[in-house]
Amino acid sequence: MTFEEVRAQFPVLERFAYLNAGTMGPLARATAQAMTERTQLDLEQGRGGKPYFEAMFALREGVRERLAGLLGVPADRIALTNSTSEGCNIVLAGLDLGPEDEVITTDAEHPGLLGPLHVSGARVRVVEVGAHPAAEALDRLAGAVTPRTKLLALSHVLWTTGQAMPVHELREQTGLLVLVDGAQSVGAIPVEAGNADFYTVSCQKWLCGPDPLGGLYVADPERLRVALPTYFSVQSIEPDGSFVPKEGSLRFDSGWLALPSLAGLLAALDLAPEWRFERARQSAERCRELLSQRFEVVTEPNQSTLVSFRPDGDAAELAVQAYERGVVIRDLPGTGLLRASCGYWTSDGDLDRLVEAVSI
Amino acid sequence: MTFEEVRAQFPVLERFAYLNAGTMGPLARATAQAMTERTQLDLEQGRGGKPYFEAMFALREGVRERLAGLLGVPADRIALTNSTSEGCNIVLAGLDLGPEDEVITTDAEHPGLLGPLHVSGARVRVVEVGAHPAAEALDRLAGAVTPRTKLLALSHVLWTTGQAMPVHELREQTGLLVLVDGAQSVGAIPVEAGNADFYTVSCQKWLCGPDPLGGLYVADPERLRVALPTYFSVQSIEPDGSFVPKEGSLRFDSGWLALPSLAGLLAALDLAPEWRFERARQSAERCRELLSQRFEVVTEPNQSTLVSFRPDGDAAELAVQAYERGVVIRDLPGTGLLRASCGYWTSDGDLDRLVEAVSI
Repeated sequence: MTFEEVRAQFPVLERFAYLNAGTMGPLARATAQAMTERTQLDLEQGRGGKPYFEAMFALREGVRERLAGLLGVPADRIALTNSTSEGCNIVLAGLDLGPEDEVITTDAEHPGLLGPLHVSGARVRVVEVGAHPAAEALDRLAGAVTPRTKLLALSHVLWTTGQAMPVHELREQTGLLVLVDGAQSVGAIPVEAGNADFYTVSCQKWLCGPDPLGGLYVADPERLRVALPTYFSVQSIEPDGSFVPKEGSLRFDSGWLALPSLAGLLAALDLAPEWRFERARQSAERCRELLSQRFEVVTEPNQSTLVSFRPDGDAAELAVQAYERGVVIRDLPGTGLLRASCGYWTSDGDLDRLVEAVSI
Repeated sequence: MTFEEVRAQFPVLERFAYLNAGTMGPLARATAQAMTERTQLDLEQGRGGKPYFEAMFALREGVRERLAGLLGVPADRIALTNSTSEGCNIVLAGLDLGPEDEVITTDAEHPGLLGPLHVSGARVRVVEVGAHPAAEALDRLAGAVTPRTKLLALSHVLWTTGQAMPVHELREQTGLLVLVDGAQSVGAIPVEAGNADFYTVSCQKWLCGPDPLGGLYVADPERLRVALPTYFSVQSIEPDGSFVPKEGSLRFDSGWLALPSLAGLLAALDLAPEWRFERARQSAERCRELLSQRFEVVTEPNQSTLVSFRPDGDAAELAVQAYERGVVIRDLPGTGLLRASCGYWTSDGDLDRLVEAVSI
């Protein structure tokens, strides 16, 4: 598939320099079509009978297999969820941490991880890495470990600056459980989730899926309590609620997931070209270079597909101005920064428009 | 709106005697159209910028207000969820019950409630009501209360037999907290959720919404811990995850919900005619009468919109046979029973087809 063919799949690119996959990715025609076809089928044929339920299970298993392929792990270690936040809640509720336990995280995490960390009951130790060189992150994080540390919970790619975190090295060096928030990594950069204990996936961002579906890799399902059971997570259940969990990580599956969304996601997952990561990396580097000529770019080179920079003026107002000029980016509240998301679909023209749109 | 106009909204009724709303309701043309239009908009205009996020919040609040209206409670006491199961997990994880606490439930609950009950840590006492006269349920349940009982958790309408449970009387008589699984009641029978402490809603069943969305009524949000926080449930959050919850029951909101699904649900909620409950009740009574002439009907008169009966043969095989004959019903595994779901859209012709389809 050529770059032009890829661009043509995403109608939004005809209208906008769409640089917002860190929030929601662009939708492809085939994705919308699969959603609409499934909806039409459900409308006409109803949502019942054997074919319907067989289709539902086939869609779930299809998505599970593809997410496993992306993460480089076996399919039976993937749970299907609604979101990364839900994945974080599943892990943190299941670990049964107490006030004597410590969890280490960074100072640049998303509420979807932070909320579940807070309610886990553990003491949360926040390590400052966001405003420091990426090369220091490993020492800073590993240096914060104490005998009470039970878990390291952090993003693979920080949603604020796009800084890549040394999640694999951390696990090797500390030997501790590592929960990785993969919202800004899966689909954006190559991922080997097998180097973590828990790894979350957001399907609506870099995987360009319908909103909202997610995944959760659990390396050792027997060691995590099923804290949020659903109809789909149990093999059998007694009248008092005691249950036999499903095999593997299917025991962490969320409940019913929408068939149109699953169908759309399956289409989206099958569309991405082989050169996705290489091209996205190049786009991000070019974005850095262009912005660096005019602004302070806080993202270091060769991190990920997010590029954050300090514009000459109010970031929130400039994000609105950019939208009016046909460029979709976001501001990072409280920081004065703007963030551009570069995908494998991003053109040089998109980046030129970005620079122009945020200039006063 | 006339009965014929209502029927014409649901294309599946042209093909099937669709008697399966207890699992998934029929979809209306307007519902599918709203989903498709929103998907098309997201495809072409992208999922970013102020108009997109404003639309998302407007859809959420629109659904919240309509669900509140259906339950007869203030909108700020409704949380938006993905499902009844998620609502049960939100409540049971937030109550912080321990092994000294008892929860009373019935012997005919759905895994979506039973799983969360089991993992709550409380002792689950199962009261047999499913095979007993509905009039005995109140005494049986209230009689099981002990000084350790902290919660009564049960369906308003049992998903197995359609028996209506005396949830309001139970709360009055015991003074205990009551969690009501409303999966088979909201949209099927009139509901006053204000008589419960927690009340769940399934939108994809009797409300004919897209799969899957739900609601949760929480009467006193200050008294339930936010155990499963999301980006949407917090007003503000600190780097260590400590947060200020949203006002009212919005603090229990699930994460991102799909815009196409919310748009479809809003359309579905606006379609139901005023005479929905009266007509559904009549359909269920007629269904009982017709089936009683040939089979043992286990559902008592004047319960709800579900009618369960014992066919002359294997229930699972007969459900398949019925589907092949254009009638969508379900069997209840392990019981030998078939279950028909009667809605305000059900015609006498549908019911005649049902009797014929399950006859050997």
